[in-house]
Amino acid sequence: MEVSPVYRQSDDSQQDRPAHPQVFLTGEAQKSDHLRAGPCVDFPVSVVLPAGGTGERTGLQTPKQFCPFLGRPLISYTIESFERVSWIQTIMVVVAKENIGFMMDIVQQFQHNKVRVVPGGSTRHRSICNGVMALGEEGVREQEKPAASSRPKVVIIHDAVRPFVDEDFLHKIAVAAKKQGAAGSIRPLVSTVIATTSEGYLDHSLERAKYRASEMPQGFRYDVIYQAYQRCTESDLEFGTECLHLALQYSGINAKLIDGPPTLWKVTYKRDLAAAESIIKETLSQTACLITGGLEAGVTLANVLQKAFGALDVVDPSSLSEVEALLVALEAGNRVLLNPAVIIWMHLSVTAEPFTSMLAAESGALTGLAIKAKLRNILLYGIWLHQPQDSEQWERLASRVAEIASALIRERNPVFVGQLLQA
Amino acid sequence: MEVSPVYRQSDDSQQDRPAHPQVFLTGEAQKSDHLRAGPCVDFPVSVVLPAGGTGERTGLQTPKQFCPFLGRPLISYTIESFERVSWIQTIMVVVAKENIGFMMDIVQQFQHNKVRVVPGGSTRHRSICNGVMALGEEGVREQEKPAASSRPKVVIIHDAVRPFVDEDFLHKIAVAAKKQGAAGSIRPLVSTVIATTSEGYLDHSLERAKYRASEMPQGFRYDVIYQAYQRCTESDLEFGTECLHLALQYSGINAKLIDGPPTLWKVTYKRDLAAAESIIKETLSQTACLITGGLEAGVTLANVLQKAFGALDVVDPSSLSEVEALLVALEAGNRVLLNPAVIIWMHLSVTAEPFTSMLAAESGALTGLAIKAKLRNILLYGIWLHQPQDSEQWERLASRVAEIASALIRERNPVFVGQLLQA
Repeated sequence: MEVSPVYRQSDDSQQDRPAHPQVFLTGEAQKSDHLRAGPCVDFPVSVVLPAGGTGERTGLQTPKQFCPFLGRPLISYTIESFERVSWIQTIMVVVAKENIGFMMDIVQQFQHNKVRVVPGGSTRHRSICNGVMALGEEGVREQEKPAASSRPKVVIIHDAVRPFVDEDFLHKIAVAAKKQGAAGSIRPLVSTVIATTSEGYLDHSLERAKYRASEMPQGFRYDVIYQAYQRCTESDLEFGTECLHLALQYSGINAKLIDGPPTLWKVTYKRDLAAAESIIKETLSQTACLITGGLEAGVTLANVLQKAFGALDVVDPSSLSEVEALLVALEAGNRVLLNPAVIIWMHLSVTAEPFTSMLAAESGALTGLAIKAKLRNILLYGIWLHQPQDSEQWERLASRVAEIASALIRERNPVFVGQLLQA
Repeated sequence: MEVSPVYRQSDDSQQDRPAHPQVFLTGEAQKSDHLRAGPCVDFPVSVVLPAGGTGERTGLQTPKQFCPFLGRPLISYTIESFERVSWIQTIMVVVAKENIGFMMDIVQQFQHNKVRVVPGGSTRHRSICNGVMALGEEGVREQEKPAASSRPKVVIIHDAVRPFVDEDFLHKIAVAAKKQGAAGSIRPLVSTVIATTSEGYLDHSLERAKYRASEMPQGFRYDVIYQAYQRCTESDLEFGTECLHLALQYSGINAKLIDGPPTLWKVTYKRDLAAAESIIKETLSQTACLITGGLEAGVTLANVLQKAFGALDVVDPSSLSEVEALLVALEAGNRVLLNPAVIIWMHLSVTAEPFTSMLAAESGALTGLAIKAKLRNILLYGIWLHQPQDSEQWERLASRVAEIASALIRERNPVFVGQLLQA
C-alpha cells in the first residue's frame, strides 16, 4: 500500500507559544490552563483527523470544516482541542488534494505545531486509511528507526467537524483502546430508527433502548486498525463508514463502547454552525479583559462587574493612549493568536452636560484606535456614563454597564467596534 | 377511556388579527403572507401537539418548549406554524397539569385562536392519547352532533419542540395519511447506529442505507389512531415512543414514509436552542421596517440599503415625534404581537462639528423613546452619520450604515436599544 506525502509547516513557525498567562485572561490563557489539567497516559498516542467533507448538507459553498468562527476556521478549533492535550503527539489532518494549500495556511497562521497534513482519498475510509499509514511512516522518516518502534501505540480517529472534544474523554478512549484494542464513543438515539420497505413504507421500528448512535472519537491500537485497513476489501473502502466494524471484522476486536457527552455532536447542517458559534462564544465569554478608564468613583461599578463575569480582570489605564500600549502588549504576547480579545474602554462623565466636546473628541479617537485594534484581532468598544449622585444610582448604573459589557463580550460583533455606547 | 377536560381561552380575546399588511413589513405581515400560500385540503384536519417534556437534556430549568426566543416561548412558534395553515382546524396542545395555567397565559398573550389545551399523561403516548381522545369529544361538546361526523378526518401529531414545519410538507403528510391511513416523516441517519452487548461492547453495526430516523410530523386517519390507542396495551403506553408502530400493530396500517426537510429536527440539547434562535432571527431579518430621519441627500444610502435587505420599507418621518406616532400605529395594528419590530432612526449631520449639542439632545430623546418602544415589543435604535463630500464617500458610508443596520436587525439585541451608533 502506497503512502502519501506528508506536508509539514516550516520549522521557523514552530516556536513555542506562551504557556503561562500573566495579567490578562484571554482565550490564550484558557488554553494554557488546559495544558496543565487532566490525567496523562504513558504510551504514545497520535490522531487522525479526516477533513475531506464537501459540506453539501449545510447548503454552503465552503466545506463546514473551513467555515470561520470569529475569524478562525472550525477545523482550527478541533485541532486546538487535541493540541492542548500534552500526551497527544502528532495530529494527522487528511484533506482533499485541492485544499492542501489552504490547510497549510491555516496550520501556519494559527501555529498548529503538532499538525501534519496528508492528502485524502475518494471516500472517508480511504482518507482515514491514508492518515493511519502516514502515521506509520512518520517515525521512519523522522528518526530513521524501524517503523514498529516509533509508531504510536494508540491512534485516535476523530472528525474535523466535532470541535468540542475534551481531554478527560480522550483519556478514557485512549486507555480503553490500549486495553481492549478498540474503543468507540456512543450517544443515546435522539429519534426512533425505522426500517423501510423498498416502496417507501414502514417495515418495522427498532427498539430504541437496544441501539446507540456511534460517534467520534474512536481509539484503536495501531496494529488493530493497521491490520483492518490492510485486510479490508475495496467494497469496504468504497461504501463503509464505520471503523469499529472493520476492527471487528478484520482484526476480531469487539470495541469497548463509552458514553460520550452531548458536545461530541457533529456539525452537519447549517443550524449546527449557529450552535457551534454559540458554544464558542459562551466559552470565550468566561474570560475577558475589561478596562476602566478615568473612573475615579467606580468602586461599586467594579464590584458589580466582577460579580457579572467570573474570571474578569479590571485594569485601569486612565487614558486612551495607555489602551494603545495595551493593544501592542497583547499582540506581542501572542495572546490574540487564536481568539479575539475584547477590550471595553469606559468614560465617566462628571460634568452636568450629557455629552461634552471632550467626549466627542475621545469618541473619535476611540474609533480610530478600534480600527487598528481590529487588525490585531482585538475588539475595542467604549461605554460612557454619567457620574451618579448616590449609591443607589451607582448600583443601577453599574448593572446597566454590566449588561452592555456582557452583550459586547458575548456577541463579539466586529461591526460595533469603536462605538461609544451610553450606559 | 376517560376524556380529560379541555381548557379554552376566553372568547373576548379571540378577535381576528389583521390579515393583510399595509405599509410596514414585520413578522406579522409575513404571517399574513403565509395564510395565502400553499395548496388546500378538502377534509377536516386537526393537530395534537404534545408539550409535556421536562427538558432534562438541555440542562436548563425551563422545559425547552417554554424557553423564550425574542420574548416568545418556543411552543408559540410551533403553534404559529400550524395556525397560519388555513385548512388546519384545532390544535390540541397537551401539557403537564402543573403547566396548564402557564400555557393558557401563552395562548391568551399571543392570541392563538385555534388552540385548545388538555392535560397530559405520565408518558408521551398517554399524552398523545389524551389529545386524540379530546379531539373526538371536541365536536360533541361544541356542536352537539354525533361524534363521528364532527371528528377530524386526519390528525397530525407533532412535537412542541419542532418549531419550523412548513405548510407544503404538512399538506403532503395530511394527504398521504388520508390515502394510506398513516404517514410519517423520515430523515437520513446522521450517525451509524450500532447494537451493543449487555457488557458495553459492540455487537454489530446497522447498514445505514436501510434505516431512517423517524421524525415528526406524522399523520393518521382519525379512526386508525383512535383504534390503535383503544387496543394498545399498558406496556405500549408506558414504554413505547413510536405512533407509527401502534398504527401498524393495532390497526394493520403500514405508514407511508415521506422524506422531510432538515428543519424538522427536534430541539433537544442546549446547543439546539442557539440553532433555533439563529433560524428565527434569520427568518425575521428577511423583513424589517427601517426609517430614515432628516436625510435630505440620502438617495444613494436608500439604494444601498434596499440592496442589502430584500423586502425593506424605507419610510421617511423627519423627526423623532413622527417616530413616536409610528410606534403607536404599529402597536394599534397588532403588528408586533408575535415578533419584535426593529426601527432604526437615522440622523444626518451636515455641520463640520462631529457631534453637535443638537445631536446630543436627540440622542437623549431617542433613549427615552426606545425605553417606551421596548415595552411595546419594538426595538428602536439610532445611527448618525456625517454628510459626505462626494458620491464615492456616500457609497462607502452607505455600506457602513447597511452593515450596522444589518447587524442590529439580525441580532435584535434589546440591550442596545436607544443607542445612537456612529456610521
